[in-house]
Amino acid sequence: MSNILVVGSLGYDTISTPAGKQENILGGSANYFSIVASMFAPVNVVGVVGEDYKDSDLEILTSRNVDVKGLKKEAGKTFHWEGRYQEDMNEAETLVTDLNVFQDFNPQIPEEYKSSKYLFLANIDPELQMQVLDQVENPKMVAMDTMNFWISSKIDSLKKALNRVDVLLINEGEAKELTGEWNAISASKQLVKMGPKAVVVKRGEYGFVLYSKGKFFIMPAFPIAEVVDPTGAGDTFAAGFFGHLAKVDGNLDFASLKQACAFGTLMASFTVQGFGVSRLQELTWDDFEKRKSEYTEITGLK
Amino acid sequence: MSNILVVGSLGYDTISTPAGKQENILGGSANYFSIVASMFAPVNVVGVVGEDYKDSDLEILTSRNVDVKGLKKEAGKTFHWEGRYQEDMNEAETLVTDLNVFQDFNPQIPEEYKSSKYLFLANIDPELQMQVLDQVENPKMVAMDTMNFWISSKIDSLKKALNRVDVLLINEGEAKELTGEWNAISASKQLVKMGPKAVVVKRGEYGFVLYSKGKFFIMPAFPIAEVVDPTGAGDTFAAGFFGHLAKVDGNLDFASLKQACAFGTLMASFTVQGFGVSRLQELTWDDFEKRKSEYTEITGLK
Repeated sequence: MSNILVVGSLGYDTISTPAGKQENILGGSANYFSIVASMFAPVNVVGVVGEDYKDSDLEILTSRNVDVKGLKKEAGKTFHWEGRYQEDMNEAETLVTDLNVFQDFNPQIPEEYKSSKYLFLANIDPELQMQVLDQVENPKMVAMDTMNFWISSKIDSLKKALNRVDVLLINEGEAKELTGEWNAISASKQLVKMGPKAVVVKRGEYGFVLYSKGKFFIMPAFPIAEVVDPTGAGDTFAAGFFGHLAKVDGNLDFASLKQACAFGTLMASFTVQGFGVSRLQELTWDDFEKRKSEYTEITGLK
Repeated sequence: MSNILVVGSLGYDTISTPAGKQENILGGSANYFSIVASMFAPVNVVGVVGEDYKDSDLEILTSRNVDVKGLKKEAGKTFHWEGRYQEDMNEAETLVTDLNVFQDFNPQIPEEYKSSKYLFLANIDPELQMQVLDQVENPKMVAMDTMNFWISSKIDSLKKALNRVDVLLINEGEAKELTGEWNAISASKQLVKMGPKAVVVKRGEYGFVLYSKGKFFIMPAFPIAEVVDPTGAGDTFAAGFFGHLAKVDGNLDFASLKQACAFGTLMASFTVQGFGVSRLQELTWDDFEKRKSEYTEITGLK
């Protein structure tokens, strides 16, 4: 088992979905990722919060297998995002983004994290992702996420970052946008030409497409009849995926990647069952094991 | 092995997709269905064509395992549909529908078909679907398809028809429309309450959801990087599905339904690779077997 280093956002979100509205609840890619990945392996988190960040929210991480010495508290307010989902839950409409202390985020990797073997670059500015890459010495595996905002505003930096990572995890819509392709299959084939050795296209309620070394592995999502809030599903997909790889000290062999993707989609299926991190906070390994065997049943031809 | 009776449309389509445009090519649910289902079991087709219907197009059926004595040629022109697909290929925009001889279609089941064990009611007016049901004596299995047009214009008849069939095959968008649900999972649970013992929600490039007796079976589609024309994909899904069941004299046990769905999605994956029925006309059983083993590889965790 190896530790995971994650760099991403921590924040407070206000979220409306057809299931209701919640104000200023805990969010941010690094929070979603850390809570789930720490079920698999120890997690070290690097990020920034404001003076208003609650101790109890920090304890959600510290009470788990998460080290927060790379978390800086700066003068000012914590990052805030406000979004709304329509009925099909497939895409968030951003209503408000207050960067606050995240505006001047300048990730400094603590000395003892610099030899991390598993590095996850959550969805932040690709220039910051590269700053992190510059500070970590010879990681065994680097995975990154990104989003449409960086595709439209920092495509050159994004392409440079892509060329330095092993695995790209990306939403289907963003995969199409980044490649100009019309479906996840052709987009995957283009994305590996940009550098990553493996690409995971996250399809929300439809599951994922894994593409690596000319091979596909494609699976549906675990069926959830009542989706409450899709926020964080992508981050927790990444957490299940990368958590498994760090736990087994895995590399990029296809069998490991397949298993990691299946665990990612299962973790995401819990996330959407509650607002914010609420379902994840009470998630047990037994819950996961039970859903894993149901998933095998639901998707297995034999 | 049992014969299949199918009642549906035969027509000429004009189709635009990002891959090009084809005018007045062979189409119609009964054509798509019969060409593929006849690879599994003998097919008897009931429908109507106009005076302009080409002998060579009839031969596409008669040269296969398809009996056309239930096909009437009427004075007037053959059914004509014109549609356009945008880049994501997910939904056709109907530009022209000329019912022509289909306007007065009054399905008469030939005496020798009335004891058919496997009956497929392709997407036609639910009142006609019931007329057919009234004429077939004690079929072992009845499956039906439908579309948004009937959901909005003939919901009462559609619900009556639904209550008389064993299996409903339906598009995801139409499943949501018919139930008022927001995803395929919750929609499936509602649809079985309307009568069918099994529901198959067709998700296009994302595969399918099978729901029956409280159990789900969910799989992705076979990956196709270059989709040329999605027309007929749903009809050929039904053909692979129902063809397999007729071939093995299957019933509604879950294992048979699972296998049938997998064959359905595979058959649909060929359909989209060419305009109209072009790819299907040259499709061999070897092509199918090859894709079947690739599909097992791509979707199998072990």
